[in-house]
Amino acid sequence: MTNKDLQIIEEHESCVRSYVRSFPAVFTKARGYKIWDDEGKEYIDFFSGAGALNYGHNEPNMKKKLVEYILDDGITHSLDKATKAKTEFLEKFSDVILKPRNLDYKVMFPGPTGTNTVESALKLARKVTGRTEVISFTNGFHGMTIGSLSVTGNSMKRNGAGIPLNHTVTMPYDNFTGEDMETLDYLERFLEDNGSGVSVPAAIILETVQGEGGINAARFEWLKKVDEICKRWDIILIIDDVQAGVGRTGTFFSFEPANIKPDIVCLSKSIGGYGLPLALTLIRPELDQWKPGEHNGTFRGNNHAFITATEALSYWEDPKFEKSIQDKSDRITKFLQEMINKYPEMKAHLKGRGFMQGISSDVEGFSEKVCEHAFTNGMIMETAGGQDQVFKLFPPINIDEEGLEKGFELIEKSIKDAIKQMNLKSDTVTN
Amino acid sequence: MTNKDLQIIEEHESCVRSYVRSFPAVFTKARGYKIWDDEGKEYIDFFSGAGALNYGHNEPNMKKKLVEYILDDGITHSLDKATKAKTEFLEKFSDVILKPRNLDYKVMFPGPTGTNTVESALKLARKVTGRTEVISFTNGFHGMTIGSLSVTGNSMKRNGAGIPLNHTVTMPYDNFTGEDMETLDYLERFLEDNGSGVSVPAAIILETVQGEGGINAARFEWLKKVDEICKRWDIILIIDDVQAGVGRTGTFFSFEPANIKPDIVCLSKSIGGYGLPLALTLIRPELDQWKPGEHNGTFRGNNHAFITATEALSYWEDPKFEKSIQDKSDRITKFLQEMINKYPEMKAHLKGRGFMQGISSDVEGFSEKVCEHAFTNGMIMETAGGQDQVFKLFPPINIDEEGLEKGFELIEKSIKDAIKQMNLKSDTVTN
Amino acid sequence: MTNKDLQIIEEHESCVRSYVRSFPAVFTKARGYKIWDDEGKEYIDFFSGAGALNYGHNEPNMKKKLVEYILDDGITHSLDKATKAKTEFLEKFSDVILKPRNLDYKVMFPGPTGTNTVESALKLARKVTGRTEVISFTNGFHGMTIGSLSVTGNSMKRNGAGIPLNHTVTMPYDNFTGEDMETLDYLERFLEDNGSGVSVPAAIILETVQGEGGINAARFEWLKKVDEICKRWDIILIIDDVQAGVGRTGTFFSFEPANIKPDIVCLSKSIGGYGLPLALTLIRPELDQWKPGEHNGTFRGNNHAFITATEALSYWEDPKFEKSIQDKSDRITKFLQEMINKYPEMKAHLKGRGFMQGISSDVEGFSEKVCEHAFTNGMIMETAGGQDQVFKLFPPINIDEEGLEKGFELIEKSIKDAIKQMNLKSDTVTN
Amino acid sequence: MTNKDLQIIEEHESCVRSYVRSFPAVFTKARGYKIWDDEGKEYIDFFSGAGALNYGHNEPNMKKKLVEYILDDGITHSLDKATKAKTEFLEKFSDVILKPRNLDYKVMFPGPTGTNTVESALKLARKVTGRTEVISFTNGFHGMTIGSLSVTGNSMKRNGAGIPLNHTVTMPYDNFTGEDMETLDYLERFLEDNGSGVSVPAAIILETVQGEGGINAARFEWLKKVDEICKRWDIILIIDDVQAGVGRTGTFFSFEPANIKPDIVCLSKSIGGYGLPLALTLIRPELDQWKPGEHNGTFRGNNHAFITATEALSYWEDPKFEKSIQDKSDRITKFLQEMINKYPEMKAHLKGRGFMQGISSDVEGFSEKVCEHAFTNGMIMETAGGQDQVFKLFPPINIDEEGLEKGFELIEKSIKDAIKQMNLKSDTVTN
Repeated sequence: MTNKDLQIIEEHESCVRSYVRSFPAVFTKARGYKIWDDEGKEYIDFFSGAGALNYGHNEPNMKKKLVEYILDDGITHSLDKATKAKTEFLEKFSDVILKPRNLDYKVMFPGPTGTNTVESALKLARKVTGRTEVISFTNGFHGMTIGSLSVTGNSMKRNGAGIPLNHTVTMPYDNFTGEDMETLDYLERFLEDNGSGVSVPAAIILETVQGEGGINAARFEWLKKVDEICKRWDIILIIDDVQAGVGRTGTFFSFEPANIKPDIVCLSKSIGGYGLPLALTLIRPELDQWKPGEHNGTFRGNNHAFITATEALSYWEDPKFEKSIQDKSDRITKFLQEMINKYPEMKAHLKGRGFMQGISSDVEGFSEKVCEHAFTNGMIMETAGGQDQVFKLFPPINIDEEGLEKGFELIEKSIKDAIKQMNLKSDTVTN
Repeated sequence: MTNKDLQIIEEHESCVRSYVRSFPAVFTKARGYKIWDDEGKEYIDFFSGAGALNYGHNEPNMKKKLVEYILDDGITHSLDKATKAKTEFLEKFSDVILKPRNLDYKVMFPGPTGTNTVESALKLARKVTGRTEVISFTNGFHGMTIGSLSVTGNSMKRNGAGIPLNHTVTMPYDNFTGEDMETLDYLERFLEDNGSGVSVPAAIILETVQGEGGINAARFEWLKKVDEICKRWDIILIIDDVQAGVGRTGTFFSFEPANIKPDIVCLSKSIGGYGLPLALTLIRPELDQWKPGEHNGTFRGNNHAFITATEALSYWEDPKFEKSIQDKSDRITKFLQEMINKYPEMKAHLKGRGFMQGISSDVEGFSEKVCEHAFTNGMIMETAGGQDQVFKLFPPINIDEEGLEKGFELIEKSIKDAIKQMNLKSDTVTN
Repeated sequence: MTNKDLQIIEEHESCVRSYVRSFPAVFTKARGYKIWDDEGKEYIDFFSGAGALNYGHNEPNMKKKLVEYILDDGITHSLDKATKAKTEFLEKFSDVILKPRNLDYKVMFPGPTGTNTVESALKLARKVTGRTEVISFTNGFHGMTIGSLSVTGNSMKRNGAGIPLNHTVTMPYDNFTGEDMETLDYLERFLEDNGSGVSVPAAIILETVQGEGGINAARFEWLKKVDEICKRWDIILIIDDVQAGVGRTGTFFSFEPANIKPDIVCLSKSIGGYGLPLALTLIRPELDQWKPGEHNGTFRGNNHAFITATEALSYWEDPKFEKSIQDKSDRITKFLQEMINKYPEMKAHLKGRGFMQGISSDVEGFSEKVCEHAFTNGMIMETAGGQDQVFKLFPPINIDEEGLEKGFELIEKSIKDAIKQMNLKSDTVTN
Repeated sequence: MTNKDLQIIEEHESCVRSYVRSFPAVFTKARGYKIWDDEGKEYIDFFSGAGALNYGHNEPNMKKKLVEYILDDGITHSLDKATKAKTEFLEKFSDVILKPRNLDYKVMFPGPTGTNTVESALKLARKVTGRTEVISFTNGFHGMTIGSLSVTGNSMKRNGAGIPLNHTVTMPYDNFTGEDMETLDYLERFLEDNGSGVSVPAAIILETVQGEGGINAARFEWLKKVDEICKRWDIILIIDDVQAGVGRTGTFFSFEPANIKPDIVCLSKSIGGYGLPLALTLIRPELDQWKPGEHNGTFRGNNHAFITATEALSYWEDPKFEKSIQDKSDRITKFLQEMINKYPEMKAHLKGRGFMQGISSDVEGFSEKVCEHAFTNGMIMETAGGQDQVFKLFPPINIDEEGLEKGFELIEKSIKDAIKQMNLKSDTVTN
């Protein structure tokens, strides 16, 4: 065991740390979907840095480009001065991602974190509309700084603010109140009644698939309807694609299959390609009404990330890439559905879409147990949802067949281990 | 001219961009205090990434360690799982920085930006005390997300919030109202009068030298007195050392010569050493009352930055390093004072301390002109203050004599160019 | 026409004035349900000072007591010093109202207005629970000062605040989203999901019948269910009975038939009996945790109002009084239902209960027209609801048969006049 | 002793009650400056309902008019419909008060309490300017509803809100930080520095003499300078004359001797003349931009108060009245100065001006003791200030010589009693 290093953590790091508690090992190396600890133990990584490592660990082409750049004394840190690394990224992002999708966005580089792109989006929406309120949704997660936290649902995180979180209204996400209620009728009822206490907001912000909130995937028609409401009421639609974007759901942007064009899109996590900090705020040109420097940040010019981000875009030049993600997504769906059917004692149902799927179990504590056994069995996998009721699969989107199958094996083994440990019986037997 | 690349910026990047406007070149390479654009023009960099490049660009030892790490497939992104790169940093930071200074802090890794460490500090102070208000100071700058922006003075930045910024009280910084008023008597008068409308706050947050606010250095006795007030009223003292820390003022922490031990210290910018995103929140152990995961962030485990940050700490193992910064600081002071005396038409006075000094000119627009000429003359230098009334020198703290002298030459030349262009006359002549 | 006096109003009074615009006459005298203007024209008053004159104008017994008191130099203004007038009121209120209903409240005298009792209730609920949020309902109306306005739904009124109104969440009132949705399931779904963004509030505040909001009467089982939710989640239930209380709905407190005992009750308007300013906040004894003077107000000891309020309570000593209100309420219901059936072109349905009923017409502008014609025909009657879609009957609760019938005649005449003027046709004809 | 009645209070009234604790008697009758309890004990009233009874209790002319009006079935309650009682008041207020002072205000009738006029003033200032912040002053007192409380300094009262009080900045009142600091230079320094964190506010609100805050009278040149700052920065100046107005300081409006014309003036307390609830908000015509009904209230048409208020204005028709107040004010000043000189053991100094003067004692608890002895000696007198350090004289402004002298006698006796009880020695003796 790596006692000494974990003791260093224990002794020196704030008790706010969390994943080191679930995965008590000291990691040293990683490649693709594999990661090793300091004793040489290998793990299959189906966590992917919570969606920041969609291309796996240390992808070779990006690695090569990055090392060359560093050896060549390329600019590392540039604030928002122009660098060759930046203009190459901007050009390729436009050519490979935006133009083929018929999208026309201005690119803003806020600080290189998800919460920073969300804060910039909220500020801009309020500035442009002159309104203060923002509508967010139940179980949404948008970040930990005060602006982003105000549109985040989780009560433990919200309480951490230490101040009341204002200027926001939470509305029910798709399916929040059960399938028979159309949550958007409810939302619009509030907008149209001038006695509702809810004024027309500056923006509506949402994730198309809620990751932290429990791998809740909104229906495409629901997203379409949100888009229509925004247009009808002149509300700015912000899609927070920090986790669901960059291919995680099968298309580059998660909202593509809903056939909508948001006013503002927040990207971070995997946009840097290699796990390096980077964030973008994509802005419909008419809304790009910032004054120079009105939002800034020291690390908005992280050129190492520009280099790897540019290389990562190469994946998307070949249309077969998107196809392959979708094919493997179907494979994941099939596998999870098999598990649900084969192990009814899990009382489980399928959640999410693409490479952002999971199993929600009604058995209290079960999903956590599965993840614990997975770790023992050599796999990194995480739970999601307010009660940790979901275990979720976040493999790299460029994983090969073999990796996927290895992962499935470990997951099934972990499910069986958890069922055994918790002594769960199938209802068909017990009833 | 690099027209094509600057056009790409113009076409694709949000109009929020700022420094590319002051420094219209496309940069490609950098080493130490030098930076080159794509036409091969060399610039002396006395800007240092607004304090994020205290060790200069692409410092060779850090570069070597970083490349080795990458080539070796070291973990890049780890959230807050334990990695060897992280434990090595924690240990060395404790051994080289904290222990010798008799400091005992828990280390929190918030998201890797300055605003994120500030947000985490404010949240923790409010959580621990159960109070909501925070006192900040005139012309303070702490970041651009809503929590940090609430304690930032600049009105243009504040207006960008689009919502009222609350739960904060601004008090006058040292010397804000002129030398004959003791601003802290004023502050304490508010605390002790129960009819003052100002309640005892959760925290007082300040920079010991205000960078963005105009290179305003508080007197050590003023800092000492703030510390005493905090102790007397049981208020948490947060020092935002994001810009002034990591040697910028001559000691590792800027507050060392005032002989105080803040409750919470915010570090970012140069803590990563190489210009890579990293931030730390240092917390007095008794205050480390976070719940696991109560504040988190995707890039809080940026291992590339751990590698370079660890290497950077080597500088501080040798006591001569600190001495050398202080000696060169005296050289800077001497030079600036000479300029002030030699060019009375600047109507200037000296600001700041250490490697964070500048000249404030009462001639409207003069300092901006100096920076413009500096750029033409081959130097990157920036203004500070609400009216851009200060031009400031931020050379790397490990710069050699030669570099410093080269910089001084270019500055004097730029001063002369600016005086000539603005046709300024010395008062002694005109009167 | 009373031109000169109306010109004085026009010239000197702020344009915020409103009712003088709908009822452009100068009134001089009033008795019972009758009111006269300065030209001697008589009006039937079915407005009753928006519910402040439940016993009619200048009720003779109260008038007698009041004049005697004044002639005798009884204390007029006493802040919250003890006066005989006050102790007599307190004792009789306890004996006649509280004890027979098995209620046990402490009586607080805030400033003598509805908004002041609401503000005091909200402050106390927040103080006692240590929580900040309050849940209110769509189309609720609670007053115009910032605290009360924050729980008021009307957007025009809210915009008047000039600042964002915070610390409140608006939930759908009974029937807000149509009959097939149980709005309280929705509310509780938010409370129980820890990712909903809605925390457990200090209080829930509501009117059992929303007056300004459109004479919306909540079902008794809905009120009962709110009460259960409050108990289950340890939330303070505040009933704002400022308008619906003091007999307006047929019982002294409007919530009696729902068989609930709120934690805090707000009373004003008719509690003074004679139309004199007075307000009470009734507080469950365990919650009476005020510090002395923590909420105060100059006119909290309006002794003239104590005198008339005490006399007004005599009505309630005789159980026949309540019975008579209820009988006449049935008469009002019957009349309004007849109107709805007889004039289908109004596209109308019945609203409210007791002496707080009205007709909501789906024909835009119709209800306003009815009130306009009523005024011409010699009747004071007002609209309610966000689109003024309801004309409402607020006769004095001690009105006699004759008065009621006179009123009905004028209303039917005014309906006919409005139908004629707007040239409405019955659907059965036009279809 | 009036045990039974005080027990009723104890049993039934909320513990928020306060004055009944300082003055434990049950009052029954009052006339002029005299008040009697139920045992027939007579008290000299130098409290005057905290400034709501400037004309004394039950002034005979007002009493006569009021009784006649009631007997004649004059309208009691009218919301903001026109009544003869109202137009007569408006006309006389314009003729007797506004025109002779060359003032031109629109009159708004908010709810009939001080806090309501303040709330209406703040709302209007924010609406008209489109700004949110309001500057108030240390030790200001403006009311207990959330809007007014936000501009009130007292910490106990503020804490009662249960929510953070925002959108306001507290600046130091005249002399707050001692005589050698010009507090307004400080305020303006904040306005002019765009890094100060304080934006240009919608309004500045202040009392010319702070009553609750400790009888602090601002110098006329200070008031004049506030006025100039407001003009220079286009800030709305609100004078809260609720307590200091209606002759209390020697002129009808307290700001007259400073020769300023505020944009908005808040009046309540004694404007009704007889102690009946009434409040006015006086608005410079250009600022009267309310929408009809944007601020309203059930008791904004309290016609009994219109009747007595109109009669009260008769006092001001005779210029000798103002002169007589000022002459007696000099008498009060002289008396208090004598006391201060004669009893140096009080360590006292003079506060306030006009009929709003008091003695501030540096001996802890002394002023409270004086008031306690005064009560025993047959006088109602109150303390003021955050530490109750001031005992204040608020006699009726129409008091005769005899009443004043009687009061003085009782005060001197109470001072002597307090000195004796506390065993205070003169410093000249002890040193």
